[in-house]
Parts: sequence; structure tokens; C-alpha cells
Amino acid sequence: MNRLYVPDPLSVGGAVRPAPQQARYLLGVLRLQPGMAVLLFNGRDGEWRAVIESLGKRDCLLRVETQTRPHCIPPDVELVVALVKRGPLETIVEKAVELGVRRIRLVVTRRTNADHTRVHRLQAIATEAAEQTGRVEIPAVTEPVKLEALLAAWPAERRLMFCDEAGDDPGAAWGGSVGRAGTVLAALAPGETPWSVLIGPEGGFAPEERATLRNLPYVTPVTLGPRILRADTAAIAALALWQAAVGDWGGLKP
Amino acid sequence: MNRLYVPDPLSVGGAVRPAPQQARYLLGVLRLQPGMAVLLFNGRDGEWRAVIESLGKRDCLLRVETQTRPHCIPPDVELVVALVKRGPLETIVEKAVELGVRRIRLVVTRRTNADHTRVHRLQAIATEAAEQTGRVEIPAVTEPVKLEALLAAWPAERRLMFCDEAGDDPGAAWGGSVGRAGTVLAALAPGETPWSVLIGPEGGFAPEERATLRNLPYVTPVTLGPRILRADTAAIAALALWQAAVGDWGGLKP
Repeated sequence: MNRLYVPDPLSVGGAVRPAPQQARYLLGVLRLQPGMAVLLFNGRDGEWRAVIESLGKRDCLLRVETQTRPHCIPPDVELVVALVKRGPLETIVEKAVELGVRRIRLVVTRRTNADHTRVHRLQAIATEAAEQTGRVEIPAVTEPVKLEALLAAWPAERRLMFCDEAGDDPGAAWGGSVGRAGTVLAALAPGETPWSVLIGPEGGFAPEERATLRNLPYVTPVTLGPRILRADTAAIAALALWQAAVGDWGGLKP
Repeated sequence: MNRLYVPDPLSVGGAVRPAPQQARYLLGVLRLQPGMAVLLFNGRDGEWRAVIESLGKRDCLLRVETQTRPHCIPPDVELVVALVKRGPLETIVEKAVELGVRRIRLVVTRRTNADHTRVHRLQAIATEAAEQTGRVEIPAVTEPVKLEALLAAWPAERRLMFCDEAGDDPGAAWGGSVGRAGTVLAALAPGETPWSVLIGPEGGFAPEERATLRNLPYVTPVTLGPRILRADTAAIAALALWQAAVGDWGGLKP
């Protein structure tokens, strides 16, 4: 069944008018008729079944019937991602939402080219992904900030998994002092602490950024295997490992 | 440094003429000059440094100098993927190569629309991904076969992780008899057995396909968390978990 995000309050018997674009989709693309049902969520009241009560040429009225799922907030993991190219960045936002992040923070690093970011488009992608993946809330995509500024305001209790893909010496990092993502995560108890996952730009982090990150008490540098991963692959792999080990995929213990 | 796949034998002092398309890239896009170096691999002899010895208008001659990495075959995991839409399928092939699969088998299932597949294009994507991700061999992309035919010829020692995303009752599957991918994989010893990971089409597997798969002795059905994942997200997540637990990402034990 089709799922829509709406800002309206949702309760038994309530009336909802979808936004013009949503109405066009329901009426023009899906060709829904009065009496047919959709699922609605607003980020606060869970998921509700609603039926089309009446329709005009360009809009329709939905009547809210019953709650189908309670409100639910996913585990506290967020993605911090450098502004990579538009295609991979849009993929990353879509996939991070499917993988249950609470929010997506965009950061500007030394090797970032930041000219092209349209946060409202990324937020629209996040909203659509939340509709399709069955979430009952929408992760926020925040305006880009400089990495230094983000770290300066970092909350003490939140840990940061630094995916050190583009290290200056991957060979040494792999066998050396940097942890393997799977091993690091497998040693944690589920849900213990809020985490962020940091994914760098195509050109990697600058040496001074890497040195800064590695020396911060809340940072855990990790590697993701012996092959070079693109930013989007690394983001999806790291978030999947986090959800499997620490998040709501059920843990690694039998 | 730029990496190229070439079919030629590679040894000290050998001469290699890149294919016309590769020469265009080296000369026209990268504007390489005589004396500049590239890395070569052929799927048999590891990785070698070569320098441009001479160049014409449309081709160039590379002289092989020294081996930079020995030949290396990744752990034995393959991806079996239904023919999903072209965009996601191309993403899946690229990412599966980055995540170290040995080969990619395309399958036709009941709910697959198979009209559009161009295996040679997918093979070209796999080759380019292998060049960029630092592999010294190229995973094969095989011609589509029907799921029944694939299962009828299945090798007894190979296990099949069936990512049962589009189950007819995800709620029951999640809390019920189907294992969680992380838990199942965490219980295995690294490198013990060859594995395949099966990802279904957008519409999911048909009920009779799911029943067949679940009853096969070599099949382990698993879930990938409580949210609905697209096929490309599921493929990347499942392969990352496999590599972290069983493959060459180092295992989950400290």
C-alpha cells in the first residue's frame, strides 16, 4: 500500500488534504478512486490508514481511519558525510534513511567541493526514502557545516566511527593500530551509546584532519576491508554493520 | 595512480598496447606523457607498474617495469541477483565488485522482467570497478539463467544466504524462524565454506519460490532488519556483513 508523509495531526476520523504534488501522484499516477486506502505518517503519531473520501480535479480529501503502527524512533545513529558528488550524495542520503539513521549531517572538509549542495532536494530524497522504507518519521538532513565547527560543538557522550578509507598508508592501517569496523562493533553492547558514522570526500581527508580526528577521545578510527570503497559503498557498509551489531537488526549474539 | 585491466601477460620488460578506448583515456583525458606510469593487472599475474614508452595519435606503448602486488583471489563469496531495473542492477554490480565478490550470477525469477539485460555492459562496469577498487582480477558476470535451473545445478558444498526481504509476513519472519543475517554470519568461522548471497527482484520472490528456497538444505534464509530495503541496499548490506564476519575484512572476534 502507498505511504505518504503529511505534516497534519493524525487521529481517528481526522481529515487530511495531501499537498498538490502528492495529490497529483495519487490521482494522476496511481489513479486512486474514492474508498481506496493509503497509509499516512507525520513523524509524531505513528502510521495510519486513511481512505479517499472525495476528489476534485487536482486535490483530494483523505479520512483517517485506524492506526496501523505506533510511533517508533530508530536507534541513535547518525551519518556525518562530506559533500561528495551529487549522484553518490543522493544515493547516500536515500540508503542512510533505509538503514535507519536518525539524521544526516553534511560536512565540508579540506578536500570537499561544496558548490552544488541543495539541502532541500536531499531532504526531499530522505522523505521519499522514509515513505518507501516503512519509517514513521523523517530523518533531518542538516545544512553543511565545516568539520572543525562540527567537532568543536561535539556532544561528549556521542561516539564517532571514523571510516578511515583513504588513509595515507592503508597497508599499515589495515594491519596496524586502526580497528576493523566489524571487530570494533561486535565488541559493543546493543544500544549502549549514541554513535555517528563519518564518511569522507572522494579525495579522502587531509593529513591534518586525520591527525585531529584520531586524537579525539570520542573518535574510533576503523577500516572497511582491504579494497578501496567509494564513499557511497563505505557509508552503506558501515551503517549496515552498525545496525547489525549495535542497532535494531537484532545483534550478533545467537 | 591509474589502474588498467589488460589481457596481456605481464612480466618484467614486457610490452603492452592498451585497447583503443584505454589509450584514448590515457592520452586524451589524463594527458599522460612518455615516462609517466600506470598500474596494470590481467587477472593472473598480480599488479605491475608500467611506463608510457612511446605514443602516437591514437595509441601508446607501455613498458612493464616491476610487480607492485602479487596475484590474490578474494574469499569465495558470489552474488546471485535477480534482474532488477537497470539503474539498481548497475549499482549492484559495481558495489559487489568493490565488496570483493568472486562472480555475479544473474537470475530470472517469476517476478523478473528480463527484457533489458546487456551482460557485456554489466561486465564492463565490473571491469571498471575492479580497476578502481584495487583488485587484481575481474569478477565474471554470467548470462541470466532461470532460478530453477541455477538451483538444479547447485554445488553441494556451497551455501546460499537467501535475503528474504519481501517476505509475505515480515513481522513473523523477523521474530520467527528466519535468522538475522548478522547473527547467522557471526556464528561462522572465517573462510570455512563457499557462500552465495541471493537478492530478489523488486516485487520479491513468489510464494512458491520462497517455499522451495526455504526447504533446500544448503539455503539459510535471513532478514536484514525491520525496514524495507531496496535490492541494491540489501545486496551491499548483506555482502558487507559477510565480508566482515566470514571474509577478508578481518572477522568479528577481537
